Amino acid sequence: MCRFVIYKGTSPVQLSHLLTRPCHSIINQAFDSRLRLDHRRPINGDGFGVGWYDSIHDEELGSQPCIFTSVSPAWNNANLIRLAEKIKSPLVFGHVRATTTGSLSLDNCHPFTYGKLMFMHNGGIAGFHLIKRRLQADLSDDVFNIVQGNTDSECAFALLLSKLPDPKAKSFTTRSLQQAMLDTIATLNLYAEQAGITEPSLMNFCVTDGESVIATRYISSRHDEAASLWFSSGTTFSEYAQGGHYRMAKADKRENIIMIASEPLTFEKADWMEIRTNNMVVITPKMNLLQIPIVDKFYVSPSDPAALNRDTDFAAAKGFLSPRIALAPVQPRENAPQLSI
Amino acid sequence: MCRFVIYKGTSPVQLSHLLTRPCHSIINQAFDSRLRLDHRRPINGDGFGVGWYDSIHDEELGSQPCIFTSVSPAWNNANLIRLAEKIKSPLVFGHVRATTTGSLSLDNCHPFTYGKLMFMHNGGIAGFHLIKRRLQADLSDDVFNIVQGNTDSECAFALLLSKLPDPKAKSFTTRSLQQAMLDTIATLNLYAEQAGITEPSLMNFCVTDGESVIATRYISSRHDEAASLWFSSGTTFSEYAQGGHYRMAKADKRENIIMIASEPLTFEKADWMEIRTNNMVVITPKMNLLQIPIVDKFYVSPSDPAALNRDTDFAAAKGFLSPRIALAPVQPRENAPQLSI
Amino acid sequence: MCRFVIYKGTSPVQLSHLLTRPCHSIINQAFDSRLRLDHRRPINGDGFGVGWYDSIHDEELGSQPCIFTSVSPAWNNANLIRLAEKIKSPLVFGHVRATTTGSLSLDNCHPFTYGKLMFMHNGGIAGFHLIKRRLQADLSDDVFNIVQGNTDSECAFALLLSKLPDPKAKSFTTRSLQQAMLDTIATLNLYAEQAGITEPSLMNFCVTDGESVIATRYISSRHDEAASLWFSSGTTFSEYAQGGHYRMAKADKRENIIMIASEPLTFEKADWMEIRTNNMVVITPKMNLLQIPIVDKFYVSPSDPAALNRDTDFAAAKGFLSPRIALAPVQPRENAPQLSI
Amino acid sequence: MCRFVIYKGTSPVQLSHLLTRPCHSIINQAFDSRLRLDHRRPINGDGFGVGWYDSIHDEELGSQPCIFTSVSPAWNNANLIRLAEKIKSPLVFGHVRATTTGSLSLDNCHPFTYGKLMFMHNGGIAGFHLIKRRLQADLSDDVFNIVQGNTDSECAFALLLSKLPDPKAKSFTTRSLQQAMLDTIATLNLYAEQAGITEPSLMNFCVTDGESVIATRYISSRHDEAASLWFSSGTTFSEYAQGGHYRMAKADKRENIIMIASEPLTFEKADWMEIRTNNMVVITPKMNLLQIPIVDKFYVSPSDPAALNRDTDFAAAKGFLSPRIALAPVQPRENAPQLSI
Repeated sequence: MCRFVIYKGTSPVQLSHLLTRPCHSIINQAFDSRLRLDHRRPINGDGFGVGWYDSIHDEELGSQPCIFTSVSPAWNNANLIRLAEKIKSPLVFGHVRATTTGSLSLDNCHPFTYGKLMFMHNGGIAGFHLIKRRLQADLSDDVFNIVQGNTDSECAFALLLSKLPDPKAKSFTTRSLQQAMLDTIATLNLYAEQAGITEPSLMNFCVTDGESVIATRYISSRHDEAASLWFSSGTTFSEYAQGGHYRMAKADKRENIIMIASEPLTFEKADWMEIRTNNMVVITPKMNLLQIPIVDKFYVSPSDPAALNRDTDFAAAKGFLSPRIALAPVQPRENAPQLSI
Repeated sequence: MCRFVIYKGTSPVQLSHLLTRPCHSIINQAFDSRLRLDHRRPINGDGFGVGWYDSIHDEELGSQPCIFTSVSPAWNNANLIRLAEKIKSPLVFGHVRATTTGSLSLDNCHPFTYGKLMFMHNGGIAGFHLIKRRLQADLSDDVFNIVQGNTDSECAFALLLSKLPDPKAKSFTTRSLQQAMLDTIATLNLYAEQAGITEPSLMNFCVTDGESVIATRYISSRHDEAASLWFSSGTTFSEYAQGGHYRMAKADKRENIIMIASEPLTFEKADWMEIRTNNMVVITPKMNLLQIPIVDKFYVSPSDPAALNRDTDFAAAKGFLSPRIALAPVQPRENAPQLSI
Repeated sequence: MCRFVIYKGTSPVQLSHLLTRPCHSIINQAFDSRLRLDHRRPINGDGFGVGWYDSIHDEELGSQPCIFTSVSPAWNNANLIRLAEKIKSPLVFGHVRATTTGSLSLDNCHPFTYGKLMFMHNGGIAGFHLIKRRLQADLSDDVFNIVQGNTDSECAFALLLSKLPDPKAKSFTTRSLQQAMLDTIATLNLYAEQAGITEPSLMNFCVTDGESVIATRYISSRHDEAASLWFSSGTTFSEYAQGGHYRMAKADKRENIIMIASEPLTFEKADWMEIRTNNMVVITPKMNLLQIPIVDKFYVSPSDPAALNRDTDFAAAKGFLSPRIALAPVQPRENAPQLSI
Repeated sequence: MCRFVIYKGTSPVQLSHLLTRPCHSIINQAFDSRLRLDHRRPINGDGFGVGWYDSIHDEELGSQPCIFTSVSPAWNNANLIRLAEKIKSPLVFGHVRATTTGSLSLDNCHPFTYGKLMFMHNGGIAGFHLIKRRLQADLSDDVFNIVQGNTDSECAFALLLSKLPDPKAKSFTTRSLQQAMLDTIATLNLYAEQAGITEPSLMNFCVTDGESVIATRYISSRHDEAASLWFSSGTTFSEYAQGGHYRMAKADKRENIIMIASEPLTFEKADWMEIRTNNMVVITPKMNLLQIPIVDKFYVSPSDPAALNRDTDFAAAKGFLSPRIALAPVQPRENAPQLSI
């Protein structure tokens, strides 16, 4: 399984606080099995990527994000450790990879970028080898030729680009990104149906233009649980105890920081709320957090008892499920993060 | 420009004599500009690969070749230097790469293999981004899905596989490999024509099944010169002077060793004969060397004065031309290698 | 913690059977925590090395071992996977590394070699920074200058070389290697004592000249347990069930294969016997296996009840202890491996 | 030979303008032989490093420089190309390496850092293996233990640190850095003399604390020429013609930019002035540029005719000499850079 984290803040974060210092960062989780359910898979030593936007706009530097990727494990990458101490950003995507499809190559490391846009994926598109050419045929020449690697994820990004009115635009509305995301999922579902693929696809996708962030927790199944996805919000994210123990603090009503991650990144489980299956999460440029159901034939309403009974075996077998915090319902803290729906 | 070398011998060669020790090996040429015409391009520091067949057949080890590839420069690759001292093989492909299309990635390093087959390319397919999807559409699912990287070369190999009656066969006739090679070139020419591509493609391809070797010196143009290709044959290839000075010796009529290379690999230029443009060279399992014209609309008969007037500017501008030994015709040594035609 | 394996057989083993195919190989253990006690440390994704001697002596290739090392994790190293399918050897050292001291660098990957000799280490020399210069001062210029990396292990190898009458000799007696090993341990203990270092050193060392193998399970403490060390012997080591499930079979009295490893490499725990703390294991050129106590001030006789009460906390805290097979004594199989003492 | 460049400006430079975009940058020189004299040596494909200080002081980020290093060639390092487009700095050290001593390893890539200090070297210390232990013995434990690699250069940096009153100080005077540099050179000369080494050492060293820069052009010989060293200064350094053609412009009397490099970095040779052999160049925090003779037994006064007759064979044979611009004296441009002496 892969892991990812999204950070969006009103103030820039030093990358080290997100990636290299917390004992529970996605990098350090990569070799810590205490939170892992699946012990049969490699532990995300198959490549790493981080992408970020500048904290101060500089005309000369442009508005595209910067990317650092590596095919060696992140936890002892000397360049990453040094850069993370020196770079601050208000919007960061981090991704650690376990090879499922696609070989070990920089070309296959997330996040992927195009102009101002940045994209990453946690999951897998079922029977991808059966639909890859069909997908490629639907791309414009421009978008087809940006695909460098051999992953389903990068092809999904190319498909998303082709759903945008103009992927090279200087700015995007939140709504246009949402719609492109929905169209991407719908098209992948259509390809699968036409190819007779019955295995569900795990489509936890994230895209941003540096302003809005769209993330999905999605599976093309009514009966199976999606790969896990969590969010947390607060006013400060900092180390409260030596040894990389971080937590999200909520000093007042303001939400200066929103984090979305494949697994809780702190031991303080009450800091983290699970995003509902087959929902889209949107962080607006003004830091509002919205949760929007993706209503298609795989959607099950929360009021339907079946929503509680999605089978975790599939995602767990694939290694895409973080442990639920508890079987008993979590008692939300007074200041626990809230989603607008 | 890339460089490659093929070795086929009745006895196995220690890889170091081919790759790491000669001061004129393709690896050491990679940083020696005395033989280079094009100083504007990187010098083959963009990846390396060597493939070889076992010197003694072992049922347990199988008959497929072994491949060692690297994205760091070959000349100081500690693993390559150590392995080359310990491995012997009767049939070796070596390739150093300068990125022209395709990113720096192990997936893009030649030689490529499939079952018993091994393939490499020196050149470039013009307008490849315009024909890539058309080519992919013509592949079977099996062959389509073996493509891991993003080079024109690997796609050409996939196309060649699709031209074989059974690319997974346990053995191949020399003729079937020749025909697949001709079909590959013809198909690439057809794609280019239909896509309106007028720039010539440089198609110096090599394929082997461990028994026969087929190599082409080909350009899809009547007026331009192809990328260079040379061969040498003899009874022993050994160091005659300290410092990695190797030469081919010819003790008697027997030809125990045949080498084909993008550039002469020794200072003894009389050891090397240039292969004619738009010809195919075949080394049979019994070590006969044949040169066969590739007669299509780009073929110019040697008896036609135009054959001597192919323009070297195109290949030189692309960096694919080794220096001709001399403007004056070479006086062949008494024992100079001969091609059967 | 690091992990290592030694294979010595009367017949050569295909490296893949030792390294890449078994689900319990040192490489695959590297990401499988089911056998791990220490979850706080990285999981051996910090470099890998394998060294082997030729299966057939070839004058041209010489008698030195060949080494393949990598700073990226072994489990998805495409070159390793391909080479392991093609190389056979009667004597193999394999090592996976977790950085404790020394940076991530090929220079720091075990095994280390010098002429015919090959060496590796699992453990750590306490307070090494305090004794490094003293150790270096005791080396000859020749031996001092072979040290390329910055690990305690490579310095220990240099020290061992300096204890041999002639480290460049063409052959070594088993006894001379044993003596050099004992002298190395004694000298490291002396340095530690003189520098006032009280923390124990974990000195599981292995050395071979291609004929004899000497391995130690040693700690410079009377009260603490050493890093784990196991051996197994039999007539064949092969896959008995799909998915990489290997076991050691013992068809008759002959012992064609002896393996020594930091942890049992099969689920068949009865195949494996633990080597006693502060003992040296010797495999003679004729495949006899000897266990010899290292009697110094840290030795506790097996008849002394204290021998059973060595404290496992130290080695466990350092991550150098494999799980004991069971609290209850293992019932040896009829054909269980036996040590001559 | 290695190559390096130093940039110090009153305004920060985007790293791409220094490293990746100019066709004459040290990276692009690495594969362009038009400016190379020595064609027998690898072309700096053996590692790369860049170090820089923040353009805006940020308490949280600290005052130490950031370093990015790589053992693969710089010219196609995707991370470097992306980072160079996004990072600006007023003080940059860049270095490309050809392995002379020391293996290919991140530990051996320049620049080296310690606290606020950054150091690099172009040259070689003669007979270093004979003086390495003597040098190490003279270091404090702290400084001894920071040496990670196996180069003469890193040891020279450790020696320089040991010559400072407090290498961990929060600030340094220009004078204290100058003195440490002189002491380092004097001590290395003493070691060589005592070890009976007669071959000259090439000691082009650079050190900075983020405020002052000290660089030397030095050889321990009265008769041989040192490795080359040049400087340029002006008001803007920018692209005047497509294809990476940069030049230094001098709009007025102000000198906003000073560059020091092993070879001229533009085709406009009049932009570059050669630094005299056995001189130290100092850039003060206030951007004054001083040239100070290093007067010891290897110094030859410019008024002595022997100063013009230093033999270039030694440095050229080692590959450390850039072509002199012309045998005839350069006619300085009106605004040509001037050194205060």
